[in-house]
Amino acid sequence: MALIVHKYGGTSMGSTERIRSVAQRVAKWARAGHQMIVVPSAMSGETNRLLGLAKELAPPAMGPAALRELDAIAATGEQVSVGLLALALQSQGLEAVSYSGWQVPVRTDSAFTKARIASIEDDRVRADLAAGKVVVITGFQGLDDEGNVTTLGRGGSDTSAVAVAAAMRADECLIYTDVDGVYTTDPRIVPEARRLHTISFEEMLEMASLGSKVLQIRSVEFAGKYRVPLRVLSSFTPWDIPIEVEAKSGTLITFEEDEKMEQAVVSGIAFNRDEAKITVMGVPDRPGIAYQILGPVADANIDIDVIIQNVSHDGKTDFSFTVNRGDYARTIELLKTQVTPVTGAAQVLGDPKICKVSIVGIGMRSHVGVASKMFRTLSEEGINIQMISTSEIKTSVVIDEKYMELAVRALHKVFDLDQPAVAE
Amino acid sequence: MALIVHKYGGTSMGSTERIRSVAQRVAKWARAGHQMIVVPSAMSGETNRLLGLAKELAPPAMGPAALRELDAIAATGEQVSVGLLALALQSQGLEAVSYSGWQVPVRTDSAFTKARIASIEDDRVRADLAAGKVVVITGFQGLDDEGNVTTLGRGGSDTSAVAVAAAMRADECLIYTDVDGVYTTDPRIVPEARRLHTISFEEMLEMASLGSKVLQIRSVEFAGKYRVPLRVLSSFTPWDIPIEVEAKSGTLITFEEDEKMEQAVVSGIAFNRDEAKITVMGVPDRPGIAYQILGPVADANIDIDVIIQNVSHDGKTDFSFTVNRGDYARTIELLKTQVTPVTGAAQVLGDPKICKVSIVGIGMRSHVGVASKMFRTLSEEGINIQMISTSEIKTSVVIDEKYMELAVRALHKVFDLDQPAVAE
Repeated sequence: MALIVHKYGGTSMGSTERIRSVAQRVAKWARAGHQMIVVPSAMSGETNRLLGLAKELAPPAMGPAALRELDAIAATGEQVSVGLLALALQSQGLEAVSYSGWQVPVRTDSAFTKARIASIEDDRVRADLAAGKVVVITGFQGLDDEGNVTTLGRGGSDTSAVAVAAAMRADECLIYTDVDGVYTTDPRIVPEARRLHTISFEEMLEMASLGSKVLQIRSVEFAGKYRVPLRVLSSFTPWDIPIEVEAKSGTLITFEEDEKMEQAVVSGIAFNRDEAKITVMGVPDRPGIAYQILGPVADANIDIDVIIQNVSHDGKTDFSFTVNRGDYARTIELLKTQVTPVTGAAQVLGDPKICKVSIVGIGMRSHVGVASKMFRTLSEEGINIQMISTSEIKTSVVIDEKYMELAVRALHKVFDLDQPAVAE
Repeated sequence: MALIVHKYGGTSMGSTERIRSVAQRVAKWARAGHQMIVVPSAMSGETNRLLGLAKELAPPAMGPAALRELDAIAATGEQVSVGLLALALQSQGLEAVSYSGWQVPVRTDSAFTKARIASIEDDRVRADLAAGKVVVITGFQGLDDEGNVTTLGRGGSDTSAVAVAAAMRADECLIYTDVDGVYTTDPRIVPEARRLHTISFEEMLEMASLGSKVLQIRSVEFAGKYRVPLRVLSSFTPWDIPIEVEAKSGTLITFEEDEKMEQAVVSGIAFNRDEAKITVMGVPDRPGIAYQILGPVADANIDIDVIIQNVSHDGKTDFSFTVNRGDYARTIELLKTQVTPVTGAAQVLGDPKICKVSIVGIGMRSHVGVASKMFRTLSEEGINIQMISTSEIKTSVVIDEKYMELAVRALHKVFDLDQPAVAE
């Protein structure tokens, strides 16, 4: 008997028929002898409907008082779905009880619309499990120290599920989603892309942060911090497939290094075409210059990704970085008005038509020449590399957007990702 | 400066446009210097939508565990509307904050779907009012001792508003509704029916229990118990009518006897055609017989209204009572199978085509001959009276349904209800 957490997304909860099917799946697990906690999202479309109503009525500039109301309104979406799922479970003949975040309670800070979980009290849930009940808990929300309802922001239900699994020391947290696992790269670009049976937490973190949309990155961080075994699997399999098959499906995100020993050097190819490149040319190479350039950008709440500063010539250097494409024009304007006059930089250049392609793999730690193999492959395809950034388990390059598919396919092939891994 | 509670029904909250108009009305009162608490219902149709989803998924026989979920789901309707109204008030430039029942908290017993309010903690609300905020509180719901969300049942938002007004010792509780006040009788039957400027709490209680649908009867009882001045007024007047006019519109339900001194003897004519009459004939006239007849009926959860037992002849009596028309067939069946065999009654007779017409007025206490004037009037119209029941401030008769309109019109005229009252 294990303690298992299931998380279901909005599509799985999209109609009473689908909720019934979720209840049947959970009942199958409960009848197999597992203690079950379920964290469902709001019914699909519901959070948008609620926020739409709220935005029609809200003041144009929303301060904390308005954001507090927004959270209280948005949180009701999940409060409805936990109640509905508990009823559907009771219809399956199970004892089931639902809790909103404030009832558990899931304690958070007071950053409305993007709160962070501080702690989860487990007494009430543990007592219910011991009494043989299935416990259904709202995702996406909690309670701050002043007794206000908070939400964790979009995708927060993944994080809630992992946090609950961590607090309860669950044996596994299963994230049911509309993909059937984590792939070596996007199958829409490389038809030969393979589903990974396992991926290390660190690789998953890189894949998530590099644009893979399978899991919200905060939920992966949380799983890493508390070492929660996390499995991503499909919610579209029939609810009545044998539990032994379901329990091994999808992709397991693991923390056990040795499980990965025989794995490939590179686990996956990630990409992101939602970035833009900006270069400040002819900057005097003196201490504090990076802060002088990036300080005003950060102050304007613009996220910066890759940052490159090369060695200087004649006391001048070029400073490049990438931002979200939506922030491109604003960043260029900001640099021209606030930064170049102060730093004495010669020029601000930019290119919004770039993409970032990355190879990710824990095996890179112990294998030399992985990065150079990447660069040679791109060179053979005639693709010019504009920027390079590396970490211990990934190498990213910024290239012209039009070469993205070509680069991803070439790298997928050269790192043997088309072939099943030895250990699998 | 006064402390005022406003209550708005689901129709008033039915769209973002209407919520904006509610916010404008509340803002007008706040700007006139009043401390404001607002209790809105769920957006019209929302509670039905939520309960519809729940009933699709719920087990056929709903025990406490299922009713608990039903309440948690239904309560979200009001949780959304308080948030939306708070945002709309903020858009009017007011400081506003919303609370769900569990946040105040409004404490109730654990009778899911029909809980009763036990107490309301006022510290948080009082601090907000002192800080100049408009406080918006969910109707219809509370929190039990185990931390579960409970609902008060249909119409519970009226009761919530009155309970909040009582707990806060508000100067007046204004119930905005789709009628513009309490009338001497239903204007659809008597076009000359007049709106009452004031009505005593006891008269209102009789009017409410006799089928007048203006206010939920529990809210009137609550107002009486805690002496909360209650005003019923129209939500369809433009929000920007002068506040002096609005503050005197509708009908004030009052507790001050002297205000009523100059009032008419009879304040209103109530009627109810949703009843059926049942007579158990030839019952032995012995102690305990009433309980033998009505005990099984009450055990079957059938509400009994008028009860008549006349003097006996030859040790036998006839025992009559009325039930809701929907319970008629079930009650007859029950009496025939369970009661007549035990009591030795001769026969069970019934008539579902009856109605009850009542004259209500606190002035009846000090005026003799009011009942006889009623009976004479009905006699002059050729209407046969089947049952009579009286209390200190009302006299009810059961008559053939087909005479209902005739009886109401005749009584409305003979008690001078077509004429403005002297004191008004």
